Amino acid sequence: MNEYTFEQLSIGQKETFEVTVTSEMEDAFRKLTGDVNPLHQEDAFAKAVGNGKFDSHVTFGMLTASFYSTLAGVYLPGKFSLIHSLEIKFQKPVYAGNRLTVTGEIVDKEEGLGLILVKAQIQNQDKKTVSKANMKIMCLSQDKQ
Amino acid sequence: MNEYTFEQLSIGQKETFEVTVTSEMEDAFRKLTGDVNPLHQEDAFAKAVGNGKFDSHVTFGMLTASFYSTLAGVYLPGKFSLIHSLEIKFQKPVYAGNRLTVTGEIVDKEEGLGLILVKAQIQNQDKKTVSKANMKIMCLSQDKQ
Repeated sequence: MNEYTFEQLSIGQKETFEVTVTSEMEDAFRKLTGDVNPLHQEDAFAKAVGNGKFDSHVTFGMLTASFYSTLAGVYLPGKFSLIHSLEIKFQKPVYAGNRLTVTGEIVDKEEGLGLILVKAQIQNQDKKTVSKANMKIMCLSQDKQ
Repeated sequence: MNEYTFEQLSIGQKETFEVTVTSEMEDAFRKLTGDVNPLHQEDAFAKAVGNGKFDSHVTFGMLTASFYSTLAGVYLPGKFSLIHSLEIKFQKPVYAGNRLTVTGEIVDKEEGLGLILVKAQIQNQDKKTVSKANMKIMCLSQDKQ
């Protein structure tokens, strides 16, 4: 886990990691949230309502968005992270078995508030962007630990 | 699960449900995401960096935000939901044991795109708002199912 303090972070700094989505993860997310929507479970339903856009059931967008939590809490800035707010846009479906690359880059720093602004994205194994996010992340004070 | 079509939904329509966050849910989210940040696990660390703001370790913001997936996929609109994008702002810490009320209200409909705009919030058992979200949700066509 990275342990960057606000002062150690600079605009342009990037972090990236990979994760493979599995059907076990989909089951875990369904159990966690109670989101039993058939789009995320039933291939025939997803194909029918997707009007040719979906190959099979689609992974929960908010499951893949949960990796933005990992990006902040483990990588950028890591240990002293507290997510303040984020905007997420879903652009392409993700399926179980897809290998995702999660990337974030610091695009601004708000000195007074100790906030970093991170432009983040998730790409699939075909280098297609499946979601984008703008994140405001507070850097907690390491002096207080 | 609700099965509202785009045509059946109207501005001002509200849905709500309750959920209690548990430490088992925190463990499941940690395992799912790999976000091993100590703020979400170690009481002493959270108290120290929180500078008096945190009573104990804090639940992952993105775990509580995952209930916005449930709001869309089960309640508003339910079965024909596909989240297009959302903005989330975290306002107060959530702790294991907190009872959350998740509420969404349709504030606009975009006829051409079949999108509903939902203003959502999560309150804790003390009626304090812990997060707010603006969600754009596509209503998939039921004709195609």
